[in-house]
Amino acid sequence: MKRGNTMIKIAVDGMGGDFAPEPIVKGSIEALKKFNDLEITIFGDENKMKPYLIDHPRLKVIHTENFVDMGVKDPVFEYRRNKNASLFMAMRYVAENNADAVVTAGPTQAVVVGGHLALKRMPQMHRVAIAPIIPSIDGRGKVLLDSGANVELKAEHIEEFAVYASVVAEKTLGRSNPKVGLVNIVTEEGKGRELYKEAYELLKNNENINFVGNIEPKEVLTSDCDVLVTDGFTGNILMKTMEGTALGFGKMLKQSIYSSFLSKIGGLFMKKQLKQLSKKMDASEIGGALVLGLNHILIKAHGSSDSYAFYNAIRQARTMVEKDVINTVNNVLARKRD
Amino acid sequence: MKRGNTMIKIAVDGMGGDFAPEPIVKGSIEALKKFNDLEITIFGDENKMKPYLIDHPRLKVIHTENFVDMGVKDPVFEYRRNKNASLFMAMRYVAENNADAVVTAGPTQAVVVGGHLALKRMPQMHRVAIAPIIPSIDGRGKVLLDSGANVELKAEHIEEFAVYASVVAEKTLGRSNPKVGLVNIVTEEGKGRELYKEAYELLKNNENINFVGNIEPKEVLTSDCDVLVTDGFTGNILMKTMEGTALGFGKMLKQSIYSSFLSKIGGLFMKKQLKQLSKKMDASEIGGALVLGLNHILIKAHGSSDSYAFYNAIRQARTMVEKDVINTVNNVLARKRD
Repeated sequence: MKRGNTMIKIAVDGMGGDFAPEPIVKGSIEALKKFNDLEITIFGDENKMKPYLIDHPRLKVIHTENFVDMGVKDPVFEYRRNKNASLFMAMRYVAENNADAVVTAGPTQAVVVGGHLALKRMPQMHRVAIAPIIPSIDGRGKVLLDSGANVELKAEHIEEFAVYASVVAEKTLGRSNPKVGLVNIVTEEGKGRELYKEAYELLKNNENINFVGNIEPKEVLTSDCDVLVTDGFTGNILMKTMEGTALGFGKMLKQSIYSSFLSKIGGLFMKKQLKQLSKKMDASEIGGALVLGLNHILIKAHGSSDSYAFYNAIRQARTMVEKDVINTVNNVLARKRD
Repeated sequence: MKRGNTMIKIAVDGMGGDFAPEPIVKGSIEALKKFNDLEITIFGDENKMKPYLIDHPRLKVIHTENFVDMGVKDPVFEYRRNKNASLFMAMRYVAENNADAVVTAGPTQAVVVGGHLALKRMPQMHRVAIAPIIPSIDGRGKVLLDSGANVELKAEHIEEFAVYASVVAEKTLGRSNPKVGLVNIVTEEGKGRELYKEAYELLKNNENINFVGNIEPKEVLTSDCDVLVTDGFTGNILMKTMEGTALGFGKMLKQSIYSSFLSKIGGLFMKKQLKQLSKKMDASEIGGALVLGLNHILIKAHGSSDSYAFYNAIRQARTMVEKDVINTVNNVLARKRD
């Protein structure tokens, strides 16, 4: 099922994110300027978005005053109560096949709940996972999942995640025969918690993935895996610790540079390199996290996204639609069950 | 119970660690030269240690050809079978009050098992924890526990860990009224897994600790907490992810510096600062991890310790003995139960 020359349509939650709507609208316009095959529909408060909107033939605005607060406590209740929130309207728009993908910087749990209820799970996938692209030392990035959608998982779910993420790594990161690692606190086969022993066996015997074995958390950044699978609790700690350590390291580096006259000069000589380094570690370069396992593409951008980060999340959604990721996953999972 | 002018006696496992015995013997001699109140007894193969040994009035060697292999699979069996391994002999020597503390760079699980069986748990502590000092952005370090001794814990165990680690932070890191954080994937009170909700309540109501609330994994490096408590699974992932991210970041920084002529010059100007930065993040500066909850001080140095790292582990053990950490903890825990 090739897409040919058809347009790619993205529904954007204009009001999601810590700094919405400004960076959301600006990032969307940036994406429209960059990609001629893109059509964007933004859901949100027209009055609040107006200062940043432009007239554009491929940009449509659907007005709603409601939105999901970033501090929402009970997302299931919120979904039932706040039907006309920009996030949920964008999701229903895609569920009704008016667009191909949703992009939002809204609160994670509401995005996952809305994904379940509005977009629905693919019949072949038994759990939904959050799959960010995390930095790697070679700058190419890798897919980490689940990074927080599930606290309890079965080994089969981890196997399904591995299949899905392998397709993502191949189609959108350009890896052939992507390597899959299982993040475990021990590296020997058959060690660790029961779930991990079972997952190891399933991954090893699945012909649709290139399983390379257990990966210790300390290898996450340096390993040459393209996909790292783990449970949602472990993945969440992993991702947040990486984020925090990189941030802390960056701050310490900055302090070092500004600590003396000589080092300031040194910093100037290295300006280009330091910029590249921070680019490698910067989440906004990479886009958002794919909420995977649904009938449609759903990208969750970081809550604190600036316009460039949000542009990248749209770019990522566009690639996933263009490469027909969902149908490919469906075909691979069906093949396995034949 | 002040120690007065008595000597501090350390039993060293001469054969534990990836590069033993060279860095172990060298680090021990370094410590003897630095501290005049130190007496060291090294357990290990005299023939293998001979090239690095010197005659020293406060150094004693107890010969044994046996040792615990770094890849040991079944540490409980090993403890029963390999009684005369240098690690276990050093532990029994301390259990029989011939010395005040054990320092080893041997394999973690064998160290924990030997600690349980030879040194025994303090009656007031119901679990043993591994407590490394982890780097922090201000360079002062903080205590993280449990970083891997227990997969399953109760809230009361976390509470005991918090009390013990607060004493460590006060006595050995010099913090007054040390701040304790609970590492949790959510920051709001009363959220997260059941264990964490219970632990939150206990920590909040314990008068012997200065509890500041939940800490997200991404704040681990930057938070101003002196003690971070969590379960052994989470702590292990956290510690290894930090280690890996810092290592990866360091590699990327080095690559950046060597990538052009200008940046190499920049690196030269910043040499001192970069060295300080790597010192801040370097585990060998900090010493080893305290295996806490036993009747005696047990320090587990990193398996890959060089002589400087092992020297620091001895220095750390010395401070803990000098400051009478175990009796202080006993008194605080007894006070609570009055």
